[in-house]
Amino acid sequence: MRKIIIGVMGPGEGATTQDIDRAFKIGCSIAQHDWILLSGGRNLGVMDAVSKGAKSVGGLTLGIIPANDNTQTSDFVDLAIVTGMGSARNYINILSSDVLVACGMGMGTASEVAMALKAKKYVVLLTDNDESKSFFQKIGGDNLKIVVNEKEAIEAVQNFLEKTSA
Amino acid sequence: MRKIIIGVMGPGEGATTQDIDRAFKIGCSIAQHDWILLSGGRNLGVMDAVSKGAKSVGGLTLGIIPANDNTQTSDFVDLAIVTGMGSARNYINILSSDVLVACGMGMGTASEVAMALKAKKYVVLLTDNDESKSFFQKIGGDNLKIVVNEKEAIEAVQNFLEKTSA
Amino acid sequence: MRKIIIGVMGPGEGATTQDIDRAFKIGCSIAQHDWILLSGGRNLGVMDAVSKGAKSVGGLTLGIIPANDNTQTSDFVDLAIVTGMGSARNYINILSSDVLVACGMGMGTASEVAMALKAKKYVVLLTDNDESKSFFQKIGGDNLKIVVNEKEAIEAVQNFLEKTSA
Amino acid sequence: MRKIIIGVMGPGEGATTQDIDRAFKIGCSIAQHDWILLSGGRNLGVMDAVSKGAKSVGGLTLGIIPANDNTQTSDFVDLAIVTGMGSARNYINILSSDVLVACGMGMGTASEVAMALKAKKYVVLLTDNDESKSFFQKIGGDNLKIVVNEKEAIEAVQNFLEKTSA
Repeated sequence: MRKIIIGVMGPGEGATTQDIDRAFKIGCSIAQHDWILLSGGRNLGVMDAVSKGAKSVGGLTLGIIPANDNTQTSDFVDLAIVTGMGSARNYINILSSDVLVACGMGMGTASEVAMALKAKKYVVLLTDNDESKSFFQKIGGDNLKIVVNEKEAIEAVQNFLEKTSA
Repeated sequence: MRKIIIGVMGPGEGATTQDIDRAFKIGCSIAQHDWILLSGGRNLGVMDAVSKGAKSVGGLTLGIIPANDNTQTSDFVDLAIVTGMGSARNYINILSSDVLVACGMGMGTASEVAMALKAKKYVVLLTDNDESKSFFQKIGGDNLKIVVNEKEAIEAVQNFLEKTSA
Repeated sequence: MRKIIIGVMGPGEGATTQDIDRAFKIGCSIAQHDWILLSGGRNLGVMDAVSKGAKSVGGLTLGIIPANDNTQTSDFVDLAIVTGMGSARNYINILSSDVLVACGMGMGTASEVAMALKAKKYVVLLTDNDESKSFFQKIGGDNLKIVVNEKEAIEAVQNFLEKTSA
Repeated sequence: MRKIIIGVMGPGEGATTQDIDRAFKIGCSIAQHDWILLSGGRNLGVMDAVSKGAKSVGGLTLGIIPANDNTQTSDFVDLAIVTGMGSARNYINILSSDVLVACGMGMGTASEVAMALKAKKYVVLLTDNDESKSFFQKIGGDNLKIVVNEKEAIEAVQNFLEKTSA
């Protein structure tokens, strides 16, 4: 039976200390729920922290790598899917995830949130960027849930998963 | 010598009458400047209108098609680049354009604007969606120019082109 | 530490009974060596049989799906990477695998073997198609090993893995 | 009305003098028939020569670029479609072409011929590599025509175009 995949997106270079801290905790929770973690797979920012969190409690981690080799892949990625497609791999992140969580905000993350909503995927948004919340609130509809902490993020993931299996 | 390509993005299904009208005029202006028009290539919304505008004054139009055939390609696309890659083709739109113009706003358009800014491309934004303007203004930096009409959009394209050739 | 991924390619619709039988056995052996199996992920032919083999002995299976959803995904795929990119996903199969095994021959398989050799990947070829063996022997060089049965295929995988870790 | 696109594939680094000579002549003929030339777009081998040929008689040339910028794009490409997707762009070459011509043979070319036949595209093959001819003859069926010189190649393109418009 196919495993549940939760994708976590967030800034690479521009991640804040809070983004990193939240990502680590979200990664832990995802693994503790026996969900598979999917991320962008690089060795920095939210991608790295969320994978580190999942591995810290024995989870399984997928990384969808933009480069054409593993020289910049996070040490906390078990399974590296090497695409060689740069940011076009974001589309794969989205289609492969049952629910997506955006942790933090930046141009890459905004691009993925918007593309995920366009693909009618469920998206949980955890950010202190007020402008992005106003914007995505306006266009996101019922497939978007804006949350204020990691605990709410995981609850929102669970609620959305119940909808996907309904 | 390689031709200058101006990419125009905008809603498909959700385009407003004003988006369509603006897109047609922008397409005309692009062709009159002897730039090549690139769009998402489908037979609806901004993609269709901008190509129709460019063809109305004898321009050359490229369409980067998400499907794996031309059954939904706009009649106003001269050269159909058939990708079979769905929204992953947005990355190609962005990398192939010297300057990008967003005409109208929706989830697909937001995704492309954000991805273009991440790829350090120049982006001109023409929309009445205030939340998107606030958001992109905050993260866009010097590579983004928000304009209020078609005339300003084309002027902004010209200004950015001078930077690319500098 | 990143897990070893062995990609197995082979015909979908055109698979012979022998291809299917060999694929099942190769899938078993891959799982018994604690390698992760990667395949094209669809619910037919070599893709389905090799995943079924790996699951029959408790292995973990990745499927790189050409469609944009899981309606045609094999029941024996644990982790479905949904690309929405048709045959462009073959490039991901190749880049993500430490060693590739071609089991059977057809146009899709030939395309992947050739692309894998171009990407300087190690390829093991198990087929009764003499023309393909002559052709790939000529262009394949040291990165290609032609074998005559499943046992030799797995030995060749092991030999190539020693080279990748050398 | 959409323009006819003829894709020409062939070796980059490994192109022979004869491949280059044939590619130049095929590029000329394609332009003289008012077809648009599509190639892999890089500044070497068959890609470069065929574009040079088309431009020498005033044709219009498309290049589907594997890199994420134009630093290695042929000077004879008018319209550079920058994919940033490496060899995954071969799928776009194939889907976008009404008929494909393989001029010379190598691993990349073999990969494209096989993928084109799988996608049910028409393919003209001009090569002195006997093993590839034997192999593709066996699997190619009616969609493949093997020719011995440039003149026959263009005749085969015309015959296939009549089938596509029938």
